[in-house]
Amino acid sequence: MEKVELCNKMETEIFPGFYAKFVHSDNVTISYVRIDEGADAPEHAHPHEQICQVIEGKFELTVEGKTYKMETNDVVVIPSNVKHSAKAFTACKVVDTFYPIREDFKKFM
Amino acid sequence: MEKVELCNKMETEIFPGFYAKFVHSDNVTISYVRIDEGADAPEHAHPHEQICQVIEGKFELTVEGKTYKMETNDVVVIPSNVKHSAKAFTACKVVDTFYPIREDFKKFM
Repeated sequence: MEKVELCNKMETEIFPGFYAKFVHSDNVTISYVRIDEGADAPEHAHPHEQICQVIEGKFELTVEGKTYKMETNDVVVIPSNVKHSAKAFTACKVVDTFYPIREDFKKFM
Repeated sequence: MEKVELCNKMETEIFPGFYAKFVHSDNVTISYVRIDEGADAPEHAHPHEQICQVIEGKFELTVEGKTYKMETNDVVVIPSNVKHSAKAFTACKVVDTFYPIREDFKKFM
């Protein structure tokens, strides 16, 4: 793989107001997400473990009924198959790392 | 795992001038690295796949003899067991994601 320049990648709207760019390695998918103020992601779960880091903004993550208020440099690990939802109180930048690869997102190169 | 606040974590000097904070999930290690201007990491390799993202600064990564000039929002994937080295031309912030977990770094919680 050559160097990836994120600024030149296309965004994909994965939930209303959640715009993601993806990098897939052999084992991991990293999702760079820009989120509109007020947007939320409905409760969902997937077999992939997910590590969520807030780069910028005020964000809330609810993992199996427990709510975490997050802002810059906060990280929460969402285990495999655990239900979670999210809400952006301001415009946010978030980085999500998934293991294993999100095959469902591989079409978004 | 509870929320991790990176600002409250201790740094570990992994190479001279490379100061890392680690988050370990069940499968992945994410390393948040602050690097001094002029610091370099000697050529090395490990069985872990590594995804390197430059957050800030001018950085150079050499992967199996091929050199990548990197800056903000550039990403390079280093496959398993491939030799690589690095140099920071300015003070840098870099995020490295490793699969599988860096057991050798697990003592740095």
